[in-house]
Amino acid sequence: MADSDIVRVFDTTLRDGEQAARINLNTGEKVQIARQLERLRVDIIEAGFPAASPGDFDAVKQVASEVRTPVIAGLARTTESDITAAGEALRSAARSRIHVFIATSPIHMEYKLKMTPSEVLREVEIGVRLASGITGDVEFSAEDASRSDIDFLVDVYSLAVECGARTLNIPDTVGYAMPNEFGEFCGNIISKVSHPGIIWSVHCHNDLGLAVANTLAAVRAGARQVECTINGLGERAGNASMEEIVMGLRTRSDHFGADTKIDTAKFFSTSKLVSNLTGVPVQPNKAIVGVNAFAHEAGIHQHGMLCNRATYEIMTPESVGSPGTDLHLGKHSGRHAFNERVELLGYQLTSDQKAKAFEYFKVLCDKKKDVSDGDIEAFLLDRVIHATPERRYELKDYAVTVGSGGKPTASITLSHKDQELTEAAVGNGPVDAAYKAILKLLSFQPELTEFRIRATSEQADAQGEAHVILRYKEIKAQGRGASTDIIEATIRAYLEAVNRLYATAAAREVTI
Amino acid sequence: MADSDIVRVFDTTLRDGEQAARINLNTGEKVQIARQLERLRVDIIEAGFPAASPGDFDAVKQVASEVRTPVIAGLARTTESDITAAGEALRSAARSRIHVFIATSPIHMEYKLKMTPSEVLREVEIGVRLASGITGDVEFSAEDASRSDIDFLVDVYSLAVECGARTLNIPDTVGYAMPNEFGEFCGNIISKVSHPGIIWSVHCHNDLGLAVANTLAAVRAGARQVECTINGLGERAGNASMEEIVMGLRTRSDHFGADTKIDTAKFFSTSKLVSNLTGVPVQPNKAIVGVNAFAHEAGIHQHGMLCNRATYEIMTPESVGSPGTDLHLGKHSGRHAFNERVELLGYQLTSDQKAKAFEYFKVLCDKKKDVSDGDIEAFLLDRVIHATPERRYELKDYAVTVGSGGKPTASITLSHKDQELTEAAVGNGPVDAAYKAILKLLSFQPELTEFRIRATSEQADAQGEAHVILRYKEIKAQGRGASTDIIEATIRAYLEAVNRLYATAAAREVTI
Repeated sequence: MADSDIVRVFDTTLRDGEQAARINLNTGEKVQIARQLERLRVDIIEAGFPAASPGDFDAVKQVASEVRTPVIAGLARTTESDITAAGEALRSAARSRIHVFIATSPIHMEYKLKMTPSEVLREVEIGVRLASGITGDVEFSAEDASRSDIDFLVDVYSLAVECGARTLNIPDTVGYAMPNEFGEFCGNIISKVSHPGIIWSVHCHNDLGLAVANTLAAVRAGARQVECTINGLGERAGNASMEEIVMGLRTRSDHFGADTKIDTAKFFSTSKLVSNLTGVPVQPNKAIVGVNAFAHEAGIHQHGMLCNRATYEIMTPESVGSPGTDLHLGKHSGRHAFNERVELLGYQLTSDQKAKAFEYFKVLCDKKKDVSDGDIEAFLLDRVIHATPERRYELKDYAVTVGSGGKPTASITLSHKDQELTEAAVGNGPVDAAYKAILKLLSFQPELTEFRIRATSEQADAQGEAHVILRYKEIKAQGRGASTDIIEATIRAYLEAVNRLYATAAAREVTI
Repeated sequence: MADSDIVRVFDTTLRDGEQAARINLNTGEKVQIARQLERLRVDIIEAGFPAASPGDFDAVKQVASEVRTPVIAGLARTTESDITAAGEALRSAARSRIHVFIATSPIHMEYKLKMTPSEVLREVEIGVRLASGITGDVEFSAEDASRSDIDFLVDVYSLAVECGARTLNIPDTVGYAMPNEFGEFCGNIISKVSHPGIIWSVHCHNDLGLAVANTLAAVRAGARQVECTINGLGERAGNASMEEIVMGLRTRSDHFGADTKIDTAKFFSTSKLVSNLTGVPVQPNKAIVGVNAFAHEAGIHQHGMLCNRATYEIMTPESVGSPGTDLHLGKHSGRHAFNERVELLGYQLTSDQKAKAFEYFKVLCDKKKDVSDGDIEAFLLDRVIHATPERRYELKDYAVTVGSGGKPTASITLSHKDQELTEAAVGNGPVDAAYKAILKLLSFQPELTEFRIRATSEQADAQGEAHVILRYKEIKAQGRGASTDIIEATIRAYLEAVNRLYATAAAREVTI
């Protein structure tokens, strides 16, 4: 395929996607996702917005130093401090990009920036020149481009090119565009700012459900970079979903004559990894990666599929790594099969972590006959990929009783600095009782802001998985727990969040 | 608005949507959804495929007799038995439509139908004529139209019009179309089969994430009916989602100059009702009805919103009935406030059901301070809108103990035909133990095929909600349970599914 037919994939799951999750991913989690994006063969990873917070800065720095094949990008406004922070965070990258943006629509300039168009032009000049002094790879975005005046945009983009930008991005920031007009709009801009060597990019939001369609319309108009996220994560209704864009280009290559370099067979595992780490579920009817995306339920459809799969299937489940039915491991599965499964699920473990994971896998095999992918993912997250190196509180013992005969009652024993602490409480349910007992043991009283439970597979002996978010002062931390006993899972998740609260507080020099 | 600018909304949640859910809705649940679609001001409700099963037949019949404002449609192949079944099921409708379809693409004709094009034409003639003899409102669909030969389609549609069809539907059955080509394709067909009084319709699937974009492209090309579902439910990756199409037309009326009659402020409650009844969750970043669809997380976005909401908002959450934050009721809330809330949530209860619901609401207020919308929905489904009038097994007593000190243990007492039966069991977790105890009490051994749990709100004292599907012989039944004790919720859900299995078995004359 000619270079002019290659569409670059710019993943912003770690920036626009993470920005929208209700809780920040920590650096370890971001690196885990970035490594999987590298295996997926993404061209550019936007790892964060370094000036936004010390956590964002560290994450960009860590991803830049550990993930070497894709270009690593950091976002920056046109201000000097943003751009130098991005340059600093990206210093150790094999290939770095600074992504400078400023809004160009009348409403954003007047109400948010409080700048005139000529002040905005001045900002573009200063910002892009500064970034170009740091790296040869600068991208410029005109925020809210789709609601901007096209002649002004032409001036803005032309100036950005003059000042050194090599990728020009046209965002539909608020998801307002319609595919036919957006394609025309992009085509117009591209023809008016023609300059050799420039890559045109789009970044579309999904407020009206059209992010993918708008992105594809822009590709038809000449865009050769698409900004997108796994599972369509992102602000509000999210960004354009990478798996849908890429499979659209691949399935309809007759229509586009352009393609990406993505290894599409890793989509399903990447989707699950991102969903598990962010805690944002994927609906069953989500295109490409939903669990029903390749399920044929109606009798007429099933009949057609038996005659010829092409009657109702335009791409195979294998092409996106959808397993069809879950594979199960069991007590006869060896270390090799287990490690292979873990890698297929998108996790890259150190050899210590592998050993620990296999050990827990064997324990679980004694408790349940079939160990599903969901089970493995749950205990990897809870027991192997620890977020906090130091665990202030560890669960030692618990007992919970519920029934129609009396109030739900829990007793909890925690180990804390070589001590064992025990308390009991009643509540309106077993989780409430357990959490009340734990609160009696803590030296501070965090607030529970989110609480979710689910089963890892669809059987009664599935593991239960719990996800909680705690807040104390201005700090939020998430915890996950997994166990064949759903009550134990909720207790473990709570304690994990408590331990992460301590770690985050220490990093931010807040006293708990 | 001129009649030519009105886009009719044809909802197929109860047909294409339900077909894709893993479990059938029962008639009561379908009527509940149809009533809410009526309040939403949908023009046509496709209530089912009467020839598919006795359950489908009954549901269409019941919806047709209870829901009087929208047109009620039933699907039928071109065969006589399908069409007479549809006519029969729709007999009591205030306004009925028979929706006749046959596939027209080379691959479907050759491999699935095993018919030549002229045999397909003959089928169209027979089927549409027969349907037109039963009702004046006949719709004809050319299945897999987007992969069909356009000249053949023109012949097919022209023949259907001659034989009495008044609505002609162009489906993108496999989600293969691209918006610009699909718009052109529809425009071409429409201009070639021009006939006064015909309404053109589209029906798009979402395999590549383009169902809404394709639908809107067809509206631009002249289609004046859109087939869609709530939450985009449907085969595989689903159908075009009604809320996205309607809000696209409304938000961008400048672009389309066409609109629907939908009361958009009922979208959020309708979405939740359908999600609760089908058990298919909606992802947080789903456009329009996802819980994050109107959430602004980034600091820059929040700053912009404070300056002027239009910086990042192209429609208000109020316009789609999104509550922003959950309202809570509590022990001081009276009957009137409670009933109002129930109605806002999309439930239409009889006065007996209202009384029962309020009674349980008061019990719940004693157990927890704040009763959320999620809590109300959960107990309405579990304790008020009973699926089975007769309950074979009723939970009398239970006690469950878990802890690190021993194996999870459950004892269960059920009442069954004036007897009380008690058993106990151990399991690898509390749910497993409880289900094993119940199995010892049943005279048959159903297989658990799905098991899901969740919390109704994001607090530890939230109610737990459980959803199970049991299978026995060829019968499947779902059960839901809710309680402040998650373990009790799982037990209640299991027993509900057992009771529904009995009801379904009796209806199908299968012996349990």
